[in-house]
Amino acid sequence: MTSWLPTLITATPEEGYELAIKLSRVAVKATQPDADIRDRLRPEYAEDAEALIAVSHVVATHFATVAAANDYWRQTE
Amino acid sequence: MTSWLPTLITATPEEGYELAIKLSRVAVKATQPDADIRDRLRPEYAEDAEALIAVSHVVATHFATVAAANDYWRQTE
Amino acid sequence: MTSWLPTLITATPEEGYELAIKLSRVAVKATQPDADIRDRLRPEYAEDAEALIAVSHVVATHFATVAAANDYWRQTE
Amino acid sequence: MTSWLPTLITATPEEGYELAIKLSRVAVKATQPDADIRDRLRPEYAEDAEALIAVSHVVATHFATVAAANDYWRQTE
Amino acid sequence: MTSWLPTLITATPEEGYELAIKLSRVAVKATQPDADIRDRLRPEYAEDAEALIAVSHVVATHFATVAAANDYWRQTE
Amino acid sequence: MTSWLPTLITATPEEGYELAIKLSRVAVKATQPDADIRDRLRPEYAEDAEALIAVSHVVATHFATVAAANDYWRQTE
Repeated sequence: MTSWLPTLITATPEEGYELAIKLSRVAVKATQPDADIRDRLRPEYAEDAEALIAVSHVVATHFATVAAANDYWRQTE
Repeated sequence: MTSWLPTLITATPEEGYELAIKLSRVAVKATQPDADIRDRLRPEYAEDAEALIAVSHVVATHFATVAAANDYWRQTE
Repeated sequence: MTSWLPTLITATPEEGYELAIKLSRVAVKATQPDADIRDRLRPEYAEDAEALIAVSHVVATHFATVAAANDYWRQTE
Repeated sequence: MTSWLPTLITATPEEGYELAIKLSRVAVKATQPDADIRDRLRPEYAEDAEALIAVSHVVATHFATVAAANDYWRQTE
Repeated sequence: MTSWLPTLITATPEEGYELAIKLSRVAVKATQPDADIRDRLRPEYAEDAEALIAVSHVVATHFATVAAANDYWRQTE
Repeated sequence: MTSWLPTLITATPEEGYELAIKLSRVAVKATQPDADIRDRLRPEYAEDAEALIAVSHVVATHFATVAAANDYWRQTE
């Protein structure tokens, strides 16, 4: 079985950011495993400014971790 | 008696993420030890978008700690 | 007089987690020193999903500090 | 195709701050890709004090990452 | 004129925690300089569970900084 | 043109704290550039306990960054 998270290392900052988004979503799935309920909730937060900002905060927290893991991609400079 | 948290070291990032989820749940149990009340509260947050995002934020904070503890699993690259 | 916080060093990760819970509670006591009022507020947050998640977030922030202080208990591996 | 995030390295702290603002906005776009809906939500948060503070918190989290990536621009002293 | 914050170094973890509480309060004073208004707001948050938890979160964030500044008071072990 | 943020280095912890307050405000200005609207919102948060605590949290996050940039002002001990 392949892992959904084999590594925190990414080739570029942009891929690191995408990984941060993924990391923020997996916890939601783990807490609410029912895809139908999640689909029902989606418009509730995707059209709510405060919820979107909160999502962005979670991504920022994960991005800090991914960036540190990649030594801030300094080697690719 | 075995500890629920013998170590922060995990074999893979994915296991580290699962540990972060566990770490986020234990504080809830410590604050509300009554399992019946927790069960009653579960639908309240598992079907509420803002609560799910907040849960995801707690997981992100713990994941940062677990990832640092594991030196971001760089050795397993 | 003994200190309520003589050190951040703990023997195990589990004890570090318990210290993080303690650290999160002391700030509440410092802000609301009246034990009767705190007792009255307890059901308000212990039976409220969002408040429990918020408590868990504070614990996560303190646990990051305690874990770093203990070098993530790597020596006990 | 050019990346929207080729590097976390910036010439100055001010540019680093601007990058942090950008990083905070991209997660919102990723969660709500519809520009019309985002435009409709804009007044909702741009004229709401709590939302503006929440935005500022996300920027602060990203700025911490960008500042660390740039070793706090100490070399430019 | 003496500074309200001459140093982040404290003799003990407990004093570091007290400094974190102080750091969390000064920003409130800077944003609302009117002492009468702050006094009026005090019962509003000191008797509100969610506000007390939020205060505790700010203290946790500052405590992380003070603890790092003091190298987690490891030398005093 | 002079930069509003030429450096993160400050002479003292107190000046570092003032810089953290400034950093927390600039993101609000960037999100709501209209000074009249910001002035209208000011009483909304300056007289609201939860908003003041939220502001203090943003300052704490920035202060962590500024303190790290200055190596916690240990040299000035």
